Amino acid sequence: MSDKQNKLWGGRFSESVDQFVQEFTASVSFDQRMYAQDIRGSIAHATMLAEVGVLTNAERDAIIDGLGAIKQDIEQGNFEWSVALEDVHMNIEARLTDRIGITGKKLHTGRSRNDQVATDIRLWLRDHIDLIDAELLRLMQGLLGLAEREAATIMPGFTHLQTAQPVTFGHHLLAWFEMLRRDRERLADCRRRVNRMPLGSAALAGTTYPINRERTRELLGFDEVCYNSLDGVSDRDFAIEFCALAALCMTHLSRMSEELVLWTSAQFQFINLPDRFCTGSSIMPQKKNPDVPELVRGKTGRVNGHLIALLTLMKSQPLAYNKDNQEDKEPLFDAVDTLHGSLRAFADMVPALEPNREVMREAARRGFATATDLADYLVRKGIAFRDAHEIVGKAVAYGVAEKKDLSDMSITELRTFSDQIDEDVFDVLTLEGSVSARNHIGGTAPEQVRDAVARARGQL
Amino acid sequence: MSDKQNKLWGGRFSESVDQFVQEFTASVSFDQRMYAQDIRGSIAHATMLAEVGVLTNAERDAIIDGLGAIKQDIEQGNFEWSVALEDVHMNIEARLTDRIGITGKKLHTGRSRNDQVATDIRLWLRDHIDLIDAELLRLMQGLLGLAEREAATIMPGFTHLQTAQPVTFGHHLLAWFEMLRRDRERLADCRRRVNRMPLGSAALAGTTYPINRERTRELLGFDEVCYNSLDGVSDRDFAIEFCALAALCMTHLSRMSEELVLWTSAQFQFINLPDRFCTGSSIMPQKKNPDVPELVRGKTGRVNGHLIALLTLMKSQPLAYNKDNQEDKEPLFDAVDTLHGSLRAFADMVPALEPNREVMREAARRGFATATDLADYLVRKGIAFRDAHEIVGKAVAYGVAEKKDLSDMSITELRTFSDQIDEDVFDVLTLEGSVSARNHIGGTAPEQVRDAVARARGQL
Amino acid sequence: MSDKQNKLWGGRFSESVDQFVQEFTASVSFDQRMYAQDIRGSIAHATMLAEVGVLTNAERDAIIDGLGAIKQDIEQGNFEWSVALEDVHMNIEARLTDRIGITGKKLHTGRSRNDQVATDIRLWLRDHIDLIDAELLRLMQGLLGLAEREAATIMPGFTHLQTAQPVTFGHHLLAWFEMLRRDRERLADCRRRVNRMPLGSAALAGTTYPINRERTRELLGFDEVCYNSLDGVSDRDFAIEFCALAALCMTHLSRMSEELVLWTSAQFQFINLPDRFCTGSSIMPQKKNPDVPELVRGKTGRVNGHLIALLTLMKSQPLAYNKDNQEDKEPLFDAVDTLHGSLRAFADMVPALEPNREVMREAARRGFATATDLADYLVRKGIAFRDAHEIVGKAVAYGVAEKKDLSDMSITELRTFSDQIDEDVFDVLTLEGSVSARNHIGGTAPEQVRDAVARARGQL
Amino acid sequence: MSDKQNKLWGGRFSESVDQFVQEFTASVSFDQRMYAQDIRGSIAHATMLAEVGVLTNAERDAIIDGLGAIKQDIEQGNFEWSVALEDVHMNIEARLTDRIGITGKKLHTGRSRNDQVATDIRLWLRDHIDLIDAELLRLMQGLLGLAEREAATIMPGFTHLQTAQPVTFGHHLLAWFEMLRRDRERLADCRRRVNRMPLGSAALAGTTYPINRERTRELLGFDEVCYNSLDGVSDRDFAIEFCALAALCMTHLSRMSEELVLWTSAQFQFINLPDRFCTGSSIMPQKKNPDVPELVRGKTGRVNGHLIALLTLMKSQPLAYNKDNQEDKEPLFDAVDTLHGSLRAFADMVPALEPNREVMREAARRGFATATDLADYLVRKGIAFRDAHEIVGKAVAYGVAEKKDLSDMSITELRTFSDQIDEDVFDVLTLEGSVSARNHIGGTAPEQVRDAVARARGQL
Repeated sequence: MSDKQNKLWGGRFSESVDQFVQEFTASVSFDQRMYAQDIRGSIAHATMLAEVGVLTNAERDAIIDGLGAIKQDIEQGNFEWSVALEDVHMNIEARLTDRIGITGKKLHTGRSRNDQVATDIRLWLRDHIDLIDAELLRLMQGLLGLAEREAATIMPGFTHLQTAQPVTFGHHLLAWFEMLRRDRERLADCRRRVNRMPLGSAALAGTTYPINRERTRELLGFDEVCYNSLDGVSDRDFAIEFCALAALCMTHLSRMSEELVLWTSAQFQFINLPDRFCTGSSIMPQKKNPDVPELVRGKTGRVNGHLIALLTLMKSQPLAYNKDNQEDKEPLFDAVDTLHGSLRAFADMVPALEPNREVMREAARRGFATATDLADYLVRKGIAFRDAHEIVGKAVAYGVAEKKDLSDMSITELRTFSDQIDEDVFDVLTLEGSVSARNHIGGTAPEQVRDAVARARGQL
Repeated sequence: MSDKQNKLWGGRFSESVDQFVQEFTASVSFDQRMYAQDIRGSIAHATMLAEVGVLTNAERDAIIDGLGAIKQDIEQGNFEWSVALEDVHMNIEARLTDRIGITGKKLHTGRSRNDQVATDIRLWLRDHIDLIDAELLRLMQGLLGLAEREAATIMPGFTHLQTAQPVTFGHHLLAWFEMLRRDRERLADCRRRVNRMPLGSAALAGTTYPINRERTRELLGFDEVCYNSLDGVSDRDFAIEFCALAALCMTHLSRMSEELVLWTSAQFQFINLPDRFCTGSSIMPQKKNPDVPELVRGKTGRVNGHLIALLTLMKSQPLAYNKDNQEDKEPLFDAVDTLHGSLRAFADMVPALEPNREVMREAARRGFATATDLADYLVRKGIAFRDAHEIVGKAVAYGVAEKKDLSDMSITELRTFSDQIDEDVFDVLTLEGSVSARNHIGGTAPEQVRDAVARARGQL
Repeated sequence: MSDKQNKLWGGRFSESVDQFVQEFTASVSFDQRMYAQDIRGSIAHATMLAEVGVLTNAERDAIIDGLGAIKQDIEQGNFEWSVALEDVHMNIEARLTDRIGITGKKLHTGRSRNDQVATDIRLWLRDHIDLIDAELLRLMQGLLGLAEREAATIMPGFTHLQTAQPVTFGHHLLAWFEMLRRDRERLADCRRRVNRMPLGSAALAGTTYPINRERTRELLGFDEVCYNSLDGVSDRDFAIEFCALAALCMTHLSRMSEELVLWTSAQFQFINLPDRFCTGSSIMPQKKNPDVPELVRGKTGRVNGHLIALLTLMKSQPLAYNKDNQEDKEPLFDAVDTLHGSLRAFADMVPALEPNREVMREAARRGFATATDLADYLVRKGIAFRDAHEIVGKAVAYGVAEKKDLSDMSITELRTFSDQIDEDVFDVLTLEGSVSARNHIGGTAPEQVRDAVARARGQL
Repeated sequence: MSDKQNKLWGGRFSESVDQFVQEFTASVSFDQRMYAQDIRGSIAHATMLAEVGVLTNAERDAIIDGLGAIKQDIEQGNFEWSVALEDVHMNIEARLTDRIGITGKKLHTGRSRNDQVATDIRLWLRDHIDLIDAELLRLMQGLLGLAEREAATIMPGFTHLQTAQPVTFGHHLLAWFEMLRRDRERLADCRRRVNRMPLGSAALAGTTYPINRERTRELLGFDEVCYNSLDGVSDRDFAIEFCALAALCMTHLSRMSEELVLWTSAQFQFINLPDRFCTGSSIMPQKKNPDVPELVRGKTGRVNGHLIALLTLMKSQPLAYNKDNQEDKEPLFDAVDTLHGSLRAFADMVPALEPNREVMREAARRGFATATDLADYLVRKGIAFRDAHEIVGKAVAYGVAEKKDLSDMSITELRTFSDQIDEDVFDVLTLEGSVSARNHIGGTAPEQVRDAVARARGQL
């Protein structure tokens, strides 16, 4: 009963909400996280309402002061959130009315919870996109630094996880950089679509009050207003777009993680991870586990999951706002937290990677990594590529049988496969020769790696 | 430093874990939820260890008493969880050692966190499957009660959301029942696979201690032991299977929800939802929104998401345990909570549904719902079905143009479409005639509905 | 054996590929679809190779002529695709060598199938993005036309599928338009990232031939080259980004579809779909089913699925190209086809929608749609919004009991709820008054709808 | 026009279906795959109809003969499928009427396409579940054979891809076996739910004809009938359940694939894959790529995708049949094909795996794999496990610095960490000692592996 009284919509209801239903449908446990955005939006709304004459200046000031005090209470842990008041909006408004009396009720003039929550979530996401961007940038800069330092470090390049051709470690790191560069572009593209203001859509159709949406937009730093009220309160495509780019970025991090896990294994030993990014085992005393990359790899799943959660949520929803949409927040919040934490962990960790250059080099030396160079050499001697490929394939088959790399074979042995092979072949079979020869934009030559780092620094 | 000392695996480490990494990799914030299962497992393990002579009876008793006291502390809110101690297992073990001294350290003999957590999560899930089953059963019984009451209530049956044929409301409710019946079968099938014991797998390969797995299995009520230690610590297919059935059950609930939302709309008005399952609008005073079905419909998304999260998590993981697996818990916990809460809300709500029988009946009367009956009538007069279909199609086209239902046409009008039509046609064009004529197992006749309720009651 | 000879990589192999493995791993059944892009890319590559002196002009001409003839053969159905030749690239190259002899083998100089397929798929997707954009634009223009025509048509606006406030049908259609406008922005953003050229990345590390990537880029109309060869051959994020936006656009179409299905039901009857967009029932002669919207709604699932397929595919893949990536094409192709077909069907159908204006209007008149207007009226009389809301809530409860809409109550009845209500209340309780009063940017007033159409036309 | 005539539902339609809509909504291109099941179902239906007197025996015989001839035509490639006839059912029925005249039209008496297609898809899936089961069984038997042969082959067991403890290769293979064993259980559970008969549900409500569903059920080998007609025609949960278990099984195969890819790398070299399961590179002559495991790993994505496609499809669908459901087939068909093909490839490949036993053994010897054994040794000397763990951790840190495995240290060196260490320590530090000591059910001891193989053979 008193419960029903507390509700802001009880007039037509003849019984209170069922106790379990109240808990089941309340959102305050998670949407309280947007308190700062909710208050920021309310202050802008009140400011505008006073400018257009719906509130007096005194009413506006009372509201703004009251909201400021509530914000302080929340931040100092002196605010008790009530499930009976359903959500962050009702909690704050009820407290405002407690504080400043009937004027508090006027704040809701010309808006609805539908446009209010849609505005809050966009403000919140915009703030967090900027935090994510900062970590992404920090990680990218760390990669550039490491790539520059390792521009000439030779390692095996893999395809199908089989040794393919020698590459430089710096070049490999720049592949990671490029993935993240596109993720950052997508983040910026998404931000433009997040930064549009639903406020003024009211419940679904706009309001009969003489609001000035352009003014509120300006006060809140939105790029534009949502041009249709039904759309403004009901779509969540911006959140889905964010989750999609977050899933892609996590997928990229999962690929880096996979490589870090491989490289720290006893079989690869390409890099060391400093102890502070690892944990041990409760039972095996020798273990030093690459927890951070493993965990980031695992966390990819939850962001893929949140993306599907939101797509499923919106599927087939008729206009305009439906209660289903309350389910938009938890997946979005967790996607944001996961991406942010993962990027932060990587940004901390990447500059601390310690390559074992000798191990990398030795791994490249084995495995017939310069077979393509031999084929190219034969082509330069006038043999068609496909025939050269066949010749080298036979030399490799011989090497597998004899357990000899190409560079370990004698000129006599090599000439049994083609009489076009001369002593100068050993130049192309060296690792340095191989990587330096791929000297075009995008190629693995140390010179290209350094140019790429410089170009990337110019763009950031 | 002291931090490193606290760790149970610090021996080979030369620096402490990074502060942020510690928080990022800790699981105690969510896995503490399994404290009761963790303690139950530890008590069974200690009991077995004493029986095989690894612990003395005095050590066992000290451990069991200590664990009992810790359980009480946790349940009374007197336990401070430490992030530095990573997870629920380490927290409890450290506290045990604080309490009972060095003996506490012996509890971990012959096991590892890898088999410990795998056992905890299975015990936890088994407990919650049983809670879910109880709500599912309650909902199914509610459906049977309502279906029995409404066995003869006529409503339009829809295909393509177009009026198709008259059905009984009881029959419609039994369609919901059948969906849930299969969900319950799946839940029982899953429980069999959940109820297998990894304990004894130790870190990955088993243990050198003379453990008796059969005894621990019996103490914990597992159906069988996991027959392979590598598999026992690393697979999470039981959790994925659970999420898959939970997603299916939520999908079924989403279909019921969709219908409830439709039926409470001003356009349908087939049912009333009692006020206690609804909420209102902060701006539109007339609104009474079907929040519970909307929210359940929306929550389908999160369970689909958790399913994908876990499938993504396990994809391509090499044996045996990897840190990625720490990510198994949150999706599973939330899938369990969501399914349980949604079933509970439905089990409360379904018996309280109030059908508007007159509105349903009137809706069935319109829309040419008995057109198939007319076609069947013509077939009984010797016309091939496909030809009868064509004849009735033309009568309907006429009815659309003239805004007349078939039962509103005169015999003269009807005979313009076929001279096989006689006065007895009006018997088959009544709603009661239509539903009663579908009198075979699975058909919509009231008699069949009552039989189906009785059969279902016998099976539950 | 002869089979092994056909392979372009057989040198080191001692046995042929298993027959089933050959079929299982071949991609030609689906990647032949990119034949035109493959040939276009080869012509540009050959042109560049001649310019840098790797091919003679005569060789280049022979290659280009040969490829032209092959293209013609394919388009005339005179090309037999061979599974033994694995994929579209090998099939075309083998045929080229059949036609022009050893020169054909030189085409592959300085490239690899890894960069070739990555280039083909980007060219193919770019072509199809442009086709999709054309249908999207056509649909958006259709919506603007219909919205303009129906700018003043009144219908009920819904939240929670409950009657909320009157809106105009034109306004509702513009909500659809806004969703699609953002989808079109995303398509353009994605196109920028698709339109980057991997060619020149060769197998993974670049090539030792003196290629001119800038020239090939220009010949193929790419915006820029991929700046890192490892990344160029291995990432498929552009395809995932496309599937994400396609899933979003299909989700938007599913929402429109849901509304069309609702609106064509006997309960709503808001619109008629012309017969040519519907199908019937094999058993129920009266049925006219809204197949197109239903099917589009259903097809949302497959695009969500393809998105997950590709995200799962890329998860944890180490650099560079792995065979897994062969699985990128079918999901992408089907996502493209599904989106394109669905947009085409909608672009055809939307302009043919026939609103039942009287039915819409009558639906808006019922259901207390102007309750908010009454509350706003009371606020203008000096009552705080929350109190006005409570007053109107009671009036609605009375109306529900008495089966009277607000506009059907007498002034005496209305005044029992508040003595602030005067005769002028009936102005605000009309539908026209209600919609016209929401006259700000984004609001539902007919004037705003017309302005929005004009603004949108200016932007397209 | 003639097009409209062909349709089996044209009576009430005033214009033909739009040409593009016809193609867009037709399903015959993919559902023709169920022709044998469709005919089998029709024969059973006709047989029952004759028994209950709806058809004469002569009519029944004509129908059955006609269907037999059509089946033959289809299998000999002499059947032209028509898009204008929409689907497999209409195509076959139209052809039947062409062949046997008006009697052909009578076949559709007492059923609808809604229950017909639901029956066909269940028959089809049941057939394919049995094919999949056969391949799964073959793969499992292959694993048992290999595991038995390699019961005592020592390899490193990994957690976090770090060397953890020595295990036997046979034990590792049995972990794979256990995963598949559960998949096979799930397949059998799913089959029970697939094997229920919707036929007799007719369009949605049952039929007015005196059908004998029990008889049709018996003829078609179903376990039971679907007990509710609305449910029978509208749910597809059996297909979703199948896709969920297929996704799990593919996930298991992806894990095996990941290990095979790792193990064939130059860094691991644990196994050789015979050439016939590999392919080469068009540019790198030395490459021998593990295509089959890579491709299977990649194919996991598409099955996850199909699962999501079907879950999304069913979300929020109101009863009963909606056109959306036409989208159920392609994902299901492809999930079946993918799982079947992947299992077949694995069943062929697994028995041909060639372990490099010396390499595996050497890898186990390094990496402090017996550190846990040392800790256990110290516990047996009376030290608490957690303290023993700390002692061994320090010994490992010393070994890392000195590049010495534990078994390479002198007794003097070892005793600097604990004076409890005696000469007998070297027994526990051997690989054979380590694996043999884990001799309990589920442990890695060769004896346990052989017992497990025998037990598993008994169960299959």
